[in-house]
Amino acid sequence: MLSDSVVEGPPPNAGDVAAFRKLWDEIAPVGRDPGSGGYLRYAFTEPELRLRDWFRRQAADRGMPVEQDGNGNLFAWYGDPERGDAVLVGSHFDSVPYGGGYDGPLGIVSAWLALDRVRESGPPPDRPIGVVAFAEEEGARFGVPCLGSRLLTGELTVDRAAALTDSDGVSFAEALGGRPTGARPDLLARVGAFVELHIEQGRALVDLGAPVGVASGIWPHGRWRMDFTGEANHAGTTLMSDRRDPMLTYAFAVLAANKEARRSGAQATVGRVEVEPNATNAVPSLVRGWLDARAAEVGTLDALVAAIDQKTAERAVRDRTGFRLTRESVTPLVEFDGGLIELFGRVLAGGVPVLPTAAGHDAGVLAAHLPTAMLFVRNPTGVSHSPAETADDIDCAAGVARLADVLSTLATDPGEGR
Amino acid sequence: MLSDSVVEGPPPNAGDVAAFRKLWDEIAPVGRDPGSGGYLRYAFTEPELRLRDWFRRQAADRGMPVEQDGNGNLFAWYGDPERGDAVLVGSHFDSVPYGGGYDGPLGIVSAWLALDRVRESGPPPDRPIGVVAFAEEEGARFGVPCLGSRLLTGELTVDRAAALTDSDGVSFAEALGGRPTGARPDLLARVGAFVELHIEQGRALVDLGAPVGVASGIWPHGRWRMDFTGEANHAGTTLMSDRRDPMLTYAFAVLAANKEARRSGAQATVGRVEVEPNATNAVPSLVRGWLDARAAEVGTLDALVAAIDQKTAERAVRDRTGFRLTRESVTPLVEFDGGLIELFGRVLAGGVPVLPTAAGHDAGVLAAHLPTAMLFVRNPTGVSHSPAETADDIDCAAGVARLADVLSTLATDPGEGR
Repeated sequence: MLSDSVVEGPPPNAGDVAAFRKLWDEIAPVGRDPGSGGYLRYAFTEPELRLRDWFRRQAADRGMPVEQDGNGNLFAWYGDPERGDAVLVGSHFDSVPYGGGYDGPLGIVSAWLALDRVRESGPPPDRPIGVVAFAEEEGARFGVPCLGSRLLTGELTVDRAAALTDSDGVSFAEALGGRPTGARPDLLARVGAFVELHIEQGRALVDLGAPVGVASGIWPHGRWRMDFTGEANHAGTTLMSDRRDPMLTYAFAVLAANKEARRSGAQATVGRVEVEPNATNAVPSLVRGWLDARAAEVGTLDALVAAIDQKTAERAVRDRTGFRLTRESVTPLVEFDGGLIELFGRVLAGGVPVLPTAAGHDAGVLAAHLPTAMLFVRNPTGVSHSPAETADDIDCAAGVARLADVLSTLATDPGEGR
Repeated sequence: MLSDSVVEGPPPNAGDVAAFRKLWDEIAPVGRDPGSGGYLRYAFTEPELRLRDWFRRQAADRGMPVEQDGNGNLFAWYGDPERGDAVLVGSHFDSVPYGGGYDGPLGIVSAWLALDRVRESGPPPDRPIGVVAFAEEEGARFGVPCLGSRLLTGELTVDRAAALTDSDGVSFAEALGGRPTGARPDLLARVGAFVELHIEQGRALVDLGAPVGVASGIWPHGRWRMDFTGEANHAGTTLMSDRRDPMLTYAFAVLAANKEARRSGAQATVGRVEVEPNATNAVPSLVRGWLDARAAEVGTLDALVAAIDQKTAERAVRDRTGFRLTRESVTPLVEFDGGLIELFGRVLAGGVPVLPTAAGHDAGVLAAHLPTAMLFVRNPTGVSHSPAETADDIDCAAGVARLADVLSTLATDPGEGR
């Protein structure tokens, strides 16, 4: 924590809260499932395309040109981006299935409002400011999280990205409307710092009684596909001893992942599964599950995944099934920029708590390429990736104010954040 | 076994085999997935509707009127059905996802060919003969197996059937083109016996070296829905100890079902699962699994399901999840008609083996309402509900010959099978 006494800056006034609510209400209904209250905003589907249109209108209203980077990421520029050393702020629009409405969009709405405060507060800043909306951060449609930022930074090849398909067989290239461009070093070279504001996906700020926090870094984390193969057969007439039932091996893996994660103080989740033929009266031929694992240290994460792999492979022998674990994406430990975090401490009156997180973000991808930092806004339920995710308007307005403070300092002092 | 020495009737000649293959080839490509070789013939979807058209053409070619019973079941009549005491033969067209091509359709194709042999062998028989195609036997689309025969016999209410929906939200009534009629005692009163020929869904006939067998009865069996509820949350930021993860309780139930079934010499399968939100980076809010359980005795089946229920409920307390087991359909022990089985023994030269089965069939539903029996045709792989299901043409032709023998005897002697 930068300050032991969490006496943050002045609370936002009614006008700040109203300004947040007004802009928030423009996007709140988009892609919201009326039954659950959860959001279905998969990348390049109708609701997410509407949010992109809304982004373009925000830029147009402020006289800002919009640039698409060929990878599905949108940038709106205030000041001439060719001058370089730009300060970039933003997040993503896409959601997990039936996710919360704040995860991603809060960072974009806050970016627009913080920019407005910077513009209202004085003459145009020295450095250009960019507002960004990254594509497919959740990986909910094409399976690879931070797809847009990974393409932009060259961490994912164009060939691999273009070939990714959604559950209907639509490729990423088709959804994008063409083959992605891939790495854009020219664009990154114009950016001097990236700041992403995000809803907190845990209870740390609730426990600290703080509306806003700063991220210190992101735990190493990744996702692995687990393929369990067996032999489809009739559920009634196939003796238990004659079966090669991959659902058994899958079930074992789910429990093993839980047990090993608890043992090592890490996190492991199997939240997604696909079954073939997925019929009540048939032993499955294939079960495919995805393992999400995260730990504070790379060594802990590696050991966790290896233990799950080994124990499940042993069980597969007993079940006479096939088992294969395939790494789909792994992000190493991310430490956010020390200079930026130090600057945040100076700029943010009263100081803010500094927290690690186990959630992946586009900021985690960008951090390897340019000075990057994150701000978190308090989440009263601590719940995310769920309709129960929420935030109070007054905390969101506080987030906007803190982001504006940071942006204003960064944009007027080219020495900051380098 | 009716005869210890399995010396069955004369093997079919080349003409019989060719006749089978010719008719079989007319339907073999319908609904076949070119990749897996499995069939997608869900009730009232395009491939199954094509098979229904084919059924009507078969009837028209033979000058037989077709009757739809208001529940989706098709009947084609040879001789005036109003005379009553009809002999009914047939099965179903619909498949499980990526199922085999013989499960169901073999009984309908064999019915047509057996009828042809009866017609060619002499004057019109005394009793009318009906060929039947039952709707939604597998329950793969609307979740209730033997839906057509259960409606016909009044074992399922019209209200419950009409409200069943498929995974796209289409109701059974919509698929049928109107509200089902339900129980048809008038139609059943016209039928004196039902014989269903079916591919064997196991290896018993392979082990016995017999191409054709007779069913003694069907094990008690049923399906239960298991709802596991928890709290959707972020897979990265939610501590293991803070989770209410229903996937864990589901995995426990899968392993418990397997263990308890092995312990009691019964069968238990969890072959179908649905997850919400089913995202890699989210703890699920809901996991729904279906338990298929079967045992030789009702008492064993009840004890098996009770044990799975109890142990899973205990685990749910530990996982802080919700768990509920709901009975969806249960079929008690079915014993096929002793008179028919005895007649089969007399009629079928050399005798045929008599076997119990753990697979449900429309014949199992009809057996409670009229004299019913089944013939099985050897399945070289023993595998069913899978693209690996198969049968040799020569065995299929033998099945047709045996079915014709039975049909001929039954139809010319009103005293048989009553």
